[in-house]
Amino acid sequence: MDKYDPLDYEYPDLDPLPSKIEDEIISPCDPTADDKLYHIIITAISCVVMLILVILSRRMKAGDRQRGLLGLLSPVNFLDHTQHKGLAVAVFGVLLCKLWGLIVSPNPLPFTTDTHNKQNWVILGVFFYPALYYPLLACGTLHNKVGYVLGSLLSWTHFTVLVWQKIDCPKTTLIHKHFSLFSSLPQIGFKDTEQNKGSEDLNSSYYKDYVKKILKKKPSKMSTSSAELPKLPQRIVNAVKSYIYMPEEAFCFPLKLAISAVVSFIALYQVGLLLISAVVPHLQKARLGVDENIASVLAGFKITLSPDRHEVVKIVVYYIWCVEVCYISAMVLSCLVNLLMLMRSMVLHRDNLKGLYRGDIYNVYNCQRNMRASRPALVCWMGYTGFTAAHICIGMLVQTMVFFLCLLVGVFLIIIPILYRQHLILFQMLWSMWPFWLMILLSMLLQHIVGRFCFVKKIAGTRDLDNRANLFLLTYLMFPVNVLIGVLLGVWRMIITAMFNIVHMGRMDISLLNRNVEPLDPAYRCYAHYLKIEVSQSHPVMKAFCGMLLQSVGQESGAVQRSRDAEEGIQLVQQEKKHKVSSAKRARRHWQLLYTLVNNPSLVGTRKHFQRPTREGFLNGSLHQRNQEASKKAAAAKEAEVAASK
Amino acid sequence: MDKYDPLDYEYPDLDPLPSKIEDEIISPCDPTADDKLYHIIITAISCVVMLILVILSRRMKAGDRQRGLLGLLSPVNFLDHTQHKGLAVAVFGVLLCKLWGLIVSPNPLPFTTDTHNKQNWVILGVFFYPALYYPLLACGTLHNKVGYVLGSLLSWTHFTVLVWQKIDCPKTTLIHKHFSLFSSLPQIGFKDTEQNKGSEDLNSSYYKDYVKKILKKKPSKMSTSSAELPKLPQRIVNAVKSYIYMPEEAFCFPLKLAISAVVSFIALYQVGLLLISAVVPHLQKARLGVDENIASVLAGFKITLSPDRHEVVKIVVYYIWCVEVCYISAMVLSCLVNLLMLMRSMVLHRDNLKGLYRGDIYNVYNCQRNMRASRPALVCWMGYTGFTAAHICIGMLVQTMVFFLCLLVGVFLIIIPILYRQHLILFQMLWSMWPFWLMILLSMLLQHIVGRFCFVKKIAGTRDLDNRANLFLLTYLMFPVNVLIGVLLGVWRMIITAMFNIVHMGRMDISLLNRNVEPLDPAYRCYAHYLKIEVSQSHPVMKAFCGMLLQSVGQESGAVQRSRDAEEGIQLVQQEKKHKVSSAKRARRHWQLLYTLVNNPSLVGTRKHFQRPTREGFLNGSLHQRNQEASKKAAAAKEAEVAASK
Repeated sequence: MDKYDPLDYEYPDLDPLPSKIEDEIISPCDPTADDKLYHIIITAISCVVMLILVILSRRMKAGDRQRGLLGLLSPVNFLDHTQHKGLAVAVFGVLLCKLWGLIVSPNPLPFTTDTHNKQNWVILGVFFYPALYYPLLACGTLHNKVGYVLGSLLSWTHFTVLVWQKIDCPKTTLIHKHFSLFSSLPQIGFKDTEQNKGSEDLNSSYYKDYVKKILKKKPSKMSTSSAELPKLPQRIVNAVKSYIYMPEEAFCFPLKLAISAVVSFIALYQVGLLLISAVVPHLQKARLGVDENIASVLAGFKITLSPDRHEVVKIVVYYIWCVEVCYISAMVLSCLVNLLMLMRSMVLHRDNLKGLYRGDIYNVYNCQRNMRASRPALVCWMGYTGFTAAHICIGMLVQTMVFFLCLLVGVFLIIIPILYRQHLILFQMLWSMWPFWLMILLSMLLQHIVGRFCFVKKIAGTRDLDNRANLFLLTYLMFPVNVLIGVLLGVWRMIITAMFNIVHMGRMDISLLNRNVEPLDPAYRCYAHYLKIEVSQSHPVMKAFCGMLLQSVGQESGAVQRSRDAEEGIQLVQQEKKHKVSSAKRARRHWQLLYTLVNNPSLVGTRKHFQRPTREGFLNGSLHQRNQEASKKAAAAKEAEVAASK
Repeated sequence: MDKYDPLDYEYPDLDPLPSKIEDEIISPCDPTADDKLYHIIITAISCVVMLILVILSRRMKAGDRQRGLLGLLSPVNFLDHTQHKGLAVAVFGVLLCKLWGLIVSPNPLPFTTDTHNKQNWVILGVFFYPALYYPLLACGTLHNKVGYVLGSLLSWTHFTVLVWQKIDCPKTTLIHKHFSLFSSLPQIGFKDTEQNKGSEDLNSSYYKDYVKKILKKKPSKMSTSSAELPKLPQRIVNAVKSYIYMPEEAFCFPLKLAISAVVSFIALYQVGLLLISAVVPHLQKARLGVDENIASVLAGFKITLSPDRHEVVKIVVYYIWCVEVCYISAMVLSCLVNLLMLMRSMVLHRDNLKGLYRGDIYNVYNCQRNMRASRPALVCWMGYTGFTAAHICIGMLVQTMVFFLCLLVGVFLIIIPILYRQHLILFQMLWSMWPFWLMILLSMLLQHIVGRFCFVKKIAGTRDLDNRANLFLLTYLMFPVNVLIGVLLGVWRMIITAMFNIVHMGRMDISLLNRNVEPLDPAYRCYAHYLKIEVSQSHPVMKAFCGMLLQSVGQESGAVQRSRDAEEGIQLVQQEKKHKVSSAKRARRHWQLLYTLVNNPSLVGTRKHFQRPTREGFLNGSLHQRNQEASKKAAAAKEAEVAASK
């Protein structure tokens, strides 16, 4: 019979007989801005805005930029924009929040309260919301004041109504009284950023800075350090650093990757919120609702925690509190792990992109790949953002469950027994096996010590076997012990493999499988394909030249304010290669060729200089040159040369 | 209420009220050859045999071969022997059986029936049995008629007594009446092979054949096929072939690897036996023991299978039979999977060893490694055989459990519902979600079709993006659907990853982790270290030259019968390099140097020509030459040249 001293528990004393906690009754709240009405109106407004935009774009089509309806239909230029991401990121974030609400709430769409056919309404909503928010994106595409004004108006309307509704009705019956409020926080946060930041990407100096940076000579530290391994503290620092994402001036993420990162973060937030609000209030209610009847219920299952009913209540309350703490800790731990993984992913994305830009295909993929557009690559590229969000969700659910179980085992089998010196089952079991553990320990020690001092000898810098006869004898005699050690090793392997895979479940950028079957991991396969398209279509060096070309065309028509940068770029190229353009006429023809390429980017993939990095990379990747700076320079110089000499 | 027609079950009709099956009473059986007495006597005999061997070896020490006491102490030359493995393999196999008996049986050692201190007796037994079987190994080492006769006598004694005991008492009370009998089958099987096969390994022509083979010119098919990928049927055939081990004439496994393979096989057998005999009889007993009381027991849990008690019995019996079938199938499946994995491992071992022999370090390890002896490498090498056995055991246990659960789910949620058209819960659930599945399917189809036909265009052999504006639009609109597809993808990833790791749990030769953290997998780390020692110490080319040297020394003292082979080998080398040895005297000095190396094999590691494959391999591995035949030849020729020119 266990005797718990109530004073042992530092849990705050409860009302000895807490009366049944009544549910806080949340009256159905109709916000002044009725959701149904609001959605109908905003849909109409959006349609009108789109109409205006179409008319505007037709008028602009006569103008200089060759944009118009086509541009309006593809407002998110996932491949070209690396600079101004606010708008697209915000819309995608809001879309994910809406999708989440669609799945979680019993009334997926505001038009209807038909909960019977929820599934069909969800399917409708899946296509309705992207259409609803589309005008926001379209407004930013025109690069026109009317467009910006309309877009700002539209986004402020969305924002104001949402805030108004939440102030009106902060509590809902859904899952938790504040769930709906918190769930829409990311949406509110985003509205501010939906400003007019749609300036032309190629005009910015980013790509030129990128080229300048890779043309610059670097002190080649890397090549000297390849011979000797860095020391342990340095390696630890490096490992920690590789998990912390620090923005680099000379590198911007492509738009799609940036969207994916933000969407992942929102998914993380939403899943965390759901996990907390769906479980913790119930646990709290259960804890506050424990009364002395619990003793007889437990007695029905032949569990007697204490002869005193009052004490039983205390113990049960304490245990439920422990479960609650475990659950919240598991959730927080999983959140932190996923945040860390997200950062690590970004570091890895950057490394992979930079590697592939300079042609290091083998290092990234561990095999030779063709960096061209293909059907599976395209499908993976289209789905990538959605897939990352889904993987983070699944990863977090699995992690929370697993961490929760581990923490439960830890708390109820290790911490509580130690604190109260009771039920030390685990420790007793381990202690009773001490001769076995001692034998294992001594055998391992023996093998390591003799391995170190008897069987390895150093002669003239090289190490070799010594004392072979005794080595074989020991190996034979130790065989049965090693089988037992092997069992422990196998269990350890199982734990480590499972933990690694569970922790990395939410990441698509690494494969969870063995290196020879990596493509069998569907998530990694998708990421690999995604990278192909991203790299083959948006090489920053190519874009830098396109930008320079656009400027030089602008110069001819009078705009000279940016000529310095372009010339700097060309001078750098010429310094590098001492390559002289024979005549101004020939040069102009080259620029015109490039100008064609800018406006027909799909042609770029078929150009010679675009295929170059692949072949270059084969050698780089396979030779495993540590002096990647050199190869980076070489690839860039080659690009520059080819572009200039045509 | 469910209505089962008894005729639906094709299960054979049972006695409607089977009387309680009485346990077959197994009387404790004392074999005529008392185990305790037998062990005491055989221990004494073994000591006497060892004494004789020591005296013999002292007398032989005066002889030519520089063996003797030291040789007697290391009878299993794990590194040098690749030819005659019977003796060592048999002893290790018997040892594993003994260890298994030690752990499973309640009376670990025959000397005592003290079951209270079982643990301590097991620990004693772990060291006793290797010592007991040691003389068997020692007898084979002397290469002496007296030794062979003694060894045969000893092994036949072990064998006869074991068979005698099993014939006397085929049934024991342990786990299952026949468990003990079947468990000792591998032991009985082995005794026959413990014959005198200890002939000198270097005398055999294997190493010379190996060298000849790698010096031979090959039609270089491989290099041409590297450009184009093989077609699908060919790739399937290749994949199947890579799982079937077919012995190659020009390659023998090193002794330690052969022992590991056999020991793994025995572990497989023993675990399978234990799994069957520990569970199936209980299930059978439970099935035969079901009577009409079961209806009231089930009613206590509010489960009513049928209103007719007789029918309830039929149903329960049928369900238990299904469980039994699932369990046996799972066990058989896991056995087959492990057998396949064992074969695949052997293919991979061979590939790895051949790769490392010719210096392809990068291909095998996926990073550059130092192929030298070191403390951790040595410890892993010593433990390798034991670890493989343990991993097979753990792998099989886990696999059987997982497969059993999967089969249970499959049988009770899919097969039985389909057969009897009842409880179609799973199908109803899936069916009610048909709009969702349809949407997912259509979206995926849409993306694939437009990806194929609208967004990829072929121009002059290269493929590139087309129709970018629509691509971006579709990507944006499909984002929410892709999140849902991503969830399915994530679940699929989880299943595939778990299944892959569970199936490969018993294999140490592949890492279950991502390629960047492979060394974190303790089993793979151990294997990698093991290979280091194995390759650095037993390169067949080096051994071929040692063998040739031994023969040339033998020739001088008159034995000429093998000169042809040695000359052939030298001629091959000369044909290859057109290298002329200047004078007979110089050549003899070189042979004498090599002779020294043979008798002091630890010196070999410090020789220049031994380090060569590492550097060679760095280039090979990193350039990923498909024409491995060529590099093989080059490495061998270099070895030959260096050996000859010194």
